[in-house]
Amino acid sequence: MKTFIRCMLCLLLAVMGMPGWARDALPSWQDGDTKRAIVAFVEKTTREGGPDFVPVEARIATFDNDGTLWAEQPAYFQLMFVFDRIRALAPQHPEWKTTEPYRSVLAGDMKGLAAGGEHGLMALLATTHAGMTTDEFSATVRDWIATARHPETKRPYPAMTYQPMRELLAYLRAHGYKTYIVSGGGQEFMRPWVEQTYGIPPEQVIGSYGELRYELRDGTPVLVKEAKVGLVDDHAGKPVGIQRFIGRRPVLAFGNSDGDLEMLQWTTAGDGPRFAGLVHHTDGKREWAYDRASKIGTLDKALDMAGLRGWTVVDMARDWRVVYSNP
Amino acid sequence: MKTFIRCMLCLLLAVMGMPGWARDALPSWQDGDTKRAIVAFVEKTTREGGPDFVPVEARIATFDNDGTLWAEQPAYFQLMFVFDRIRALAPQHPEWKTTEPYRSVLAGDMKGLAAGGEHGLMALLATTHAGMTTDEFSATVRDWIATARHPETKRPYPAMTYQPMRELLAYLRAHGYKTYIVSGGGQEFMRPWVEQTYGIPPEQVIGSYGELRYELRDGTPVLVKEAKVGLVDDHAGKPVGIQRFIGRRPVLAFGNSDGDLEMLQWTTAGDGPRFAGLVHHTDGKREWAYDRASKIGTLDKALDMAGLRGWTVVDMARDWRVVYSNP
Repeated sequence: MKTFIRCMLCLLLAVMGMPGWARDALPSWQDGDTKRAIVAFVEKTTREGGPDFVPVEARIATFDNDGTLWAEQPAYFQLMFVFDRIRALAPQHPEWKTTEPYRSVLAGDMKGLAAGGEHGLMALLATTHAGMTTDEFSATVRDWIATARHPETKRPYPAMTYQPMRELLAYLRAHGYKTYIVSGGGQEFMRPWVEQTYGIPPEQVIGSYGELRYELRDGTPVLVKEAKVGLVDDHAGKPVGIQRFIGRRPVLAFGNSDGDLEMLQWTTAGDGPRFAGLVHHTDGKREWAYDRASKIGTLDKALDMAGLRGWTVVDMARDWRVVYSNP
Repeated sequence: MKTFIRCMLCLLLAVMGMPGWARDALPSWQDGDTKRAIVAFVEKTTREGGPDFVPVEARIATFDNDGTLWAEQPAYFQLMFVFDRIRALAPQHPEWKTTEPYRSVLAGDMKGLAAGGEHGLMALLATTHAGMTTDEFSATVRDWIATARHPETKRPYPAMTYQPMRELLAYLRAHGYKTYIVSGGGQEFMRPWVEQTYGIPPEQVIGSYGELRYELRDGTPVLVKEAKVGLVDDHAGKPVGIQRFIGRRPVLAFGNSDGDLEMLQWTTAGDGPRFAGLVHHTDGKREWAYDRASKIGTLDKALDMAGLRGWTVVDMARDWRVVYSNP
């Protein structure tokens, strides 16, 4: 009898270890076509001896961040960081009360800010991102991400990351995929928190960046952030960033806007099995609903291309059981 | 008796598994201070619970390439590649016979080439490195590395990599270190062969690079190499490249020239245990002997700094049993 029970336990454990019986690695995804497409792709590319097997060193997966891994409305969260920084630094700069674009930020005058155009925005970015060392900037971001709250949801920003996408990142890694961020957002703005939040280490974070200047301060070397742009990691800048940082073409890529179109094209133009995914913001109740007409995260050409090429489009309202991660 | 033998075997296996009894992972290194310093550092930084323990995600090791992982005399090997390419392309360019700097290269006139200065060299680099796609360039390099021979030793270039350093790379990886190349040489020139030769994947190769242009050719996306310089990954460019690509400070760094000084300073200025190493080319018999007065791989300020700071200096003649890897 004992032997029988032991055998049954053995068998049970063996069956539980089989793919079909595994604990659901994507519990926040509705069972449906989208989830099935993802799982089928991962299973076929990791099935040794199968026709679509991808060796582990080539399993590169790239993800956009804003609108793909976390929310991006009513404006990119890095812009919220900029505004928060301007407000925090204002007491040391009384002249800002009457100088644009600072005046508009401090007055909450978004129309005035818009009137300043790109020039005004670049000035704000330079003020809040340049002139300090990389260590100082990291500390500032770390402090902000731990304390700041989203103006509408009042949630901490890490609690506005998408739970289904975090599960997807972990699921891919459990299958030998190396997960990268390839974002138009600032590389140094993401690195201080994405390791804890997404499990993505700093060396796998590709983003827009400014130039750095190496210098000795009292004999100690520092890297100072400069206002000069190095890479704008958006649109055609994404394949460029991928080649620069990874030197291999991704097997799987996920985005949510036209800024990701070139990354998805570059990914799917490779030989063998490739997966392109788009997060479509269809859920005005739990999140925001927007696509072709939105200024933030415009999804127009890439949505057409997805239809033509059979890319996987995630319908947020239909495909996700849960949207946000727990705080 | 059987049980006794089984126990003895068990014990033997256990002892062989202990650090001190492990098979020598660095057989090409002479037993001496240098090897002891390396092993002591790796052991103390990987001893869990020890005061100098470094968690696995922070175990970043960066290596210069030219003069550190492979030879660099009588000129950087990438320059040999440039000359070989000019000779290979010459039949399609009859005008090169009378146009500098091509004429000098084709005539083997190094004086004439030197007279053209940096301007001439940049023209050669542009001709041989720009205008083609990244895939085309990779294929060209792969072909060259498989067939070209060094003008003096007549060895294939991969057989001019240093066996002791290849053992060191493998030894570090076996202890959880992530090994990177941080070289003044071209990133895209190294990537096609360093994975096989050093076990370093493309995403861990940092080097000098030019800008890339994304475009569609007959509907297929390509990345075209441009003549515009993006990063010169030498001197202060090395810490900049390290921050850009890795976003963490190395724990261990190895170089051989003044071009590596800033990388070693940046590395050793971090908190906790840090290791800086310099390969000193002291072996005129088996390799080349040069340091302060050499134009290629000048080792002057960094050698002084090594003395002041107690960095580890590898005396190639004394510390290495073997120099080159087998072809």
